Amino acid sequence: MKLVRFSHKNKIMEGVLSDGRVLERGDRSGRTFSLEEVKLLAPLLPSKIVCVGLNYRDHASELGMKIPDEPVIFLKPPTAVIGPLDMIVYPASARRVDYEAELGVVIGKTAKRVPCRSALEYVAGYVCFNDVTARDIQKTDGQWTRSKSFDTFAPIGPWIETELDPSDIAVRTYLNGSLMQDSRTAELIFDVPYLVSFISSIMTLLPGDVIATSTPPGVGPMLPGDEVTVEVEGIGELVNRVSPQDAVGNSRMEI
Amino acid sequence: MKLVRFSHKNKIMEGVLSDGRVLERGDRSGRTFSLEEVKLLAPLLPSKIVCVGLNYRDHASELGMKIPDEPVIFLKPPTAVIGPLDMIVYPASARRVDYEAELGVVIGKTAKRVPCRSALEYVAGYVCFNDVTARDIQKTDGQWTRSKSFDTFAPIGPWIETELDPSDIAVRTYLNGSLMQDSRTAELIFDVPYLVSFISSIMTLLPGDVIATSTPPGVGPMLPGDEVTVEVEGIGELVNRVSPQDAVGNSRMEI
Repeated sequence: MKLVRFSHKNKIMEGVLSDGRVLERGDRSGRTFSLEEVKLLAPLLPSKIVCVGLNYRDHASELGMKIPDEPVIFLKPPTAVIGPLDMIVYPASARRVDYEAELGVVIGKTAKRVPCRSALEYVAGYVCFNDVTARDIQKTDGQWTRSKSFDTFAPIGPWIETELDPSDIAVRTYLNGSLMQDSRTAELIFDVPYLVSFISSIMTLLPGDVIATSTPPGVGPMLPGDEVTVEVEGIGELVNRVSPQDAVGNSRMEI
Repeated sequence: MKLVRFSHKNKIMEGVLSDGRVLERGDRSGRTFSLEEVKLLAPLLPSKIVCVGLNYRDHASELGMKIPDEPVIFLKPPTAVIGPLDMIVYPASARRVDYEAELGVVIGKTAKRVPCRSALEYVAGYVCFNDVTARDIQKTDGQWTRSKSFDTFAPIGPWIETELDPSDIAVRTYLNGSLMQDSRTAELIFDVPYLVSFISSIMTLLPGDVIATSTPPGVGPMLPGDEVTVEVEGIGELVNRVSPQDAVGNSRMEI
């Protein structure tokens, strides 16, 4: 099942996408809309987004970093979330902004110290996730947070796919139609059940929270005007464009 | 004015603390409670907590780290928040858990690219904040997020003080009554207006969000059973105890 959030005539609703039509959830009249009539929004509003670094064997070696013994995690703020076809805003302070295609895991019920063997019971479904990163800032800061926390740096969508086996599916990026990243979740060092278990042993995961499972090799820069597509097999395609470099913030900070 | 959140007979309310009594906000009957009748809670529920690293001149040198040219930021998850007198849970996976006394800045209205000169207009008030950190995990991970994101690792309180000049006030930690940290916000490398401006140029700050302004020299470990007090001059004292090492999670993860 594909769960969507959408707006129609300025009203925000939740629905189910089926056979190209959106059925409003909870609407007993069975009202449906065509995809042309609605604007799809980010399918959820997470209280937190927990990201995992360096979790594809081949990406870690691409960056010349050793494979970690435990997942390395960081957080993106909820204010970074955008939906399908929304603009990624190129910050005035950044010199290089990269795409990072990822499988996103959506938590379905409160998870605290969940064992691996039952971890998938706490998962509501899966999304395409783009862990947009200002690579130059990531390098100068050392800590990854700032470079990954700009408004619009967490495209999520296009919907939550509830029926999916996450163990061996393709994760891809297309930049202006050209294939840039292409790997499979079978390459994950720490798989989805392990990540849910590990992270829930640190912090309580709440319904709607998202775990971004890390990106495969092939990360690279986007330029203003570029169209970036994150495709996850079995979910679909998340398409966004990059805005012109943010004119308003021409000097990074206004003093 | 001191703004509190509190529970009374299982009902959660907001109020104003004055002359040792709590006046329920919005209650036209003018009902008041004594502090003994209520349990104070964390005075806010932030959508995000943005922390600043290494922002006291003397703390940076204490750690042998160079003074940064720009603030280094990281995020703590909302699930880490606890209130006055709540227990800090010592994680089973940690070998050293430190206090870090900080001045916390509470955002009052949506702030996006706010200039320094008007930044304080976006501040609702100030809180005592304890940036509890599993120091051993911070060192092994490199990234700081995991070590600072455990449930209960963000004590906030005891109230929001709305009348305060943050430019030169004392920030102190007492561990079991002994003074461990003692500095002043005049030692901040980046002051409160600069931090609000800088962070709001990255991510939109929402009402109730908290900026933790970093900790002065003197950080050190807490042991199970310890009582830790963060005192910020002009606000008050935030007291918490450390629980016995978390027995449930004796092995960090249950497979």
